[in-house]
Amino acid sequence: MKTIVILGSTGSIGTNTLDIVSRFPDQFRVAGLTAGNNDDMLDDQIRRYKPRVVALANDAAAARLRRRCSDVSVEILSGQDGLAHVAALPEAELVVSAIVGGAGLVPTLAAIRSGKHIALANKEPMVMAGQLMQEEARRHKVKIFPVDSEHSAIFQSLEGHRIEDVRRLILTASGGALWTLTKAQLQEVTPEQALQHPNWKMGAKITIDSATLMNKGLEVVEARWLFDIPESRIDVLVHRESIIHSLVEYEDRSMIAQLGLPDMRTPISYAMHYPERLALDLPSLDLTEVGKLSFCKPDHDRFPCLRLGYESLRIGGTMPAAMNAANEIAVEAFLNGGIKFPAIADIIRQTMDAHQRREIDRIETALEADRWAREKAESLAGSLAR
Amino acid sequence: MKTIVILGSTGSIGTNTLDIVSRFPDQFRVAGLTAGNNDDMLDDQIRRYKPRVVALANDAAAARLRRRCSDVSVEILSGQDGLAHVAALPEAELVVSAIVGGAGLVPTLAAIRSGKHIALANKEPMVMAGQLMQEEARRHKVKIFPVDSEHSAIFQSLEGHRIEDVRRLILTASGGALWTLTKAQLQEVTPEQALQHPNWKMGAKITIDSATLMNKGLEVVEARWLFDIPESRIDVLVHRESIIHSLVEYEDRSMIAQLGLPDMRTPISYAMHYPERLALDLPSLDLTEVGKLSFCKPDHDRFPCLRLGYESLRIGGTMPAAMNAANEIAVEAFLNGGIKFPAIADIIRQTMDAHQRREIDRIETALEADRWAREKAESLAGSLAR
Repeated sequence: MKTIVILGSTGSIGTNTLDIVSRFPDQFRVAGLTAGNNDDMLDDQIRRYKPRVVALANDAAAARLRRRCSDVSVEILSGQDGLAHVAALPEAELVVSAIVGGAGLVPTLAAIRSGKHIALANKEPMVMAGQLMQEEARRHKVKIFPVDSEHSAIFQSLEGHRIEDVRRLILTASGGALWTLTKAQLQEVTPEQALQHPNWKMGAKITIDSATLMNKGLEVVEARWLFDIPESRIDVLVHRESIIHSLVEYEDRSMIAQLGLPDMRTPISYAMHYPERLALDLPSLDLTEVGKLSFCKPDHDRFPCLRLGYESLRIGGTMPAAMNAANEIAVEAFLNGGIKFPAIADIIRQTMDAHQRREIDRIETALEADRWAREKAESLAGSLAR
Repeated sequence: MKTIVILGSTGSIGTNTLDIVSRFPDQFRVAGLTAGNNDDMLDDQIRRYKPRVVALANDAAAARLRRRCSDVSVEILSGQDGLAHVAALPEAELVVSAIVGGAGLVPTLAAIRSGKHIALANKEPMVMAGQLMQEEARRHKVKIFPVDSEHSAIFQSLEGHRIEDVRRLILTASGGALWTLTKAQLQEVTPEQALQHPNWKMGAKITIDSATLMNKGLEVVEARWLFDIPESRIDVLVHRESIIHSLVEYEDRSMIAQLGLPDMRTPISYAMHYPERLALDLPSLDLTEVGKLSFCKPDHDRFPCLRLGYESLRIGGTMPAAMNAANEIAVEAFLNGGIKFPAIADIIRQTMDAHQRREIDRIETALEADRWAREKAESLAGSLAR
């Protein structure tokens, strides 16, 4: 029986994690849950999974939840301190980090610093401060298990093989919702179009990141720190069907890959129960039904964000954090109808051009770069408003 | 520095193994080589790799070799005793078993019984007496590393994962040279046509086995014993491009696969140097160049031999040995122009129908079934002669 905390329990990864808890009630116990402002769904989760403590980032939502749950024995906290408290609950062994965006950095770091193993779905903390996160993980003897399907695939493809023998990591990319559009068509894309991911049902932010290929840029940064492999040995391959989730090439030119139908419960359960696998009663991948798998190179002209990911790593320091923050603001502006689709890349590019890189010696430096870049990107988005 | 012996050094696997030795002269030393009757090539190999002892199965060829190599310091043996002697050379740590067909059983067993680890390219011994081979390997603390590309792929896809979590092994099959022909066209196929393998350059026997899909039937039997997985959990998938060499499905529906360009040096070198990988300077697999990978189900109507493999396992005992022997005779008859292509399957089927299954308590039982089935198949081939 493993006791877990879920940071971001009302999102796509959070609800899938709870689905696994429901399927294996003898394996997992939920000690704590956190969410942003969805008191309605958290109310249901409290009644079903009986956590000892929960937290909502939003104070008003927490107040509403306290009224709704006055009949239930649960401690309800709020704000950043509340999230950090739940992240560090003494009885938890594993924290599933599934907050959307940079907001996950502080609570995830709190979990690491209190010695919890991490199932990491929230890639932005690793983008913002990957080196520091890994140093803290080593110091506190914490294992970080990737949940992102690509990084889980690489993790699984490295198991049992020697890291010294690795030649390349190859991240696959679906290409997202807009892969077939021309540059002219991309100018006129609506949020509704960009939210139609061909293979994965995910939250809005990551679905837009898939459409811009910024998601793959963020994943390159995440992979660089998760696996300690320089970006020059990380490649990206467009694979529309999202069946091969990623690959590792070894020095003898052998490649190991992980495959499966697109279902986040597989990587989530592996991260939760490593090194054992749970007998998930899910449909099996039948390659004869899929028929064919196709591959092509990324198109950096129509989708320039992937290159920004590599560039942020070459510059290093606070640059990935600035890139990530600018992306979050730009995606929000696009989803709100404030800017056109190609302006997302423009805003990130211009924010990065204006950013004064600093070394990250402590987490505050990354958070400062994050704040600076959000302001810069807000102002760029304002000036580009259509 | 690892000291090796190669059984079958003049064949396709043997010469590829020596190519690896040439590339890594600091890693491998050749103590012994054996061949069937190719004294010409063995002469060259003796001068280049300087083995202490060699053996030729054929006495006349050995006599010729002794005359040719009178200027070289090498012990030259002949016949079955000679092969068994080289298989058990005291200084060797690893024996590469690459003899074609059932002839490899006795020398490979001699190597196991003298405690040598085995790089097993010769699948027929495992088909003929897999359970006994594995028992002997356990008794003598011998590791058997598969060289067959499919079994190497499964071996690599199992490394680092729990065998208890395996749901299915999935062997891929190219479909061989005749995959696109109709039943009527298969009646008229010549040996030259059947020898045109789409992806792999291999010896004649295994290339015909690929065309009949008997190779995949033999591989199912081999996989059953190598990995101790019942045949009901071994599937076969036709994958024309031979890029995914095989896959393992786990209980959480995650699949691990091994991929690469078709080059036997990758699986050979892995078996020779396990668990480390050699930095082979070979072309890298670029999936964007391949473009697409396709998959379909085996066709048991046009290619009935695959099912015979499963059936031989369900019957058990000496049945796989009888099947294997009948296949060797039938392939030889086809290559000599004695029978038509579809008669290969007919001869195996009829030999199996006539075979009285016995338990294999000792190796002689398997050898006896082998002899009986060869005679039976010879007589069937004679009666079918065109």
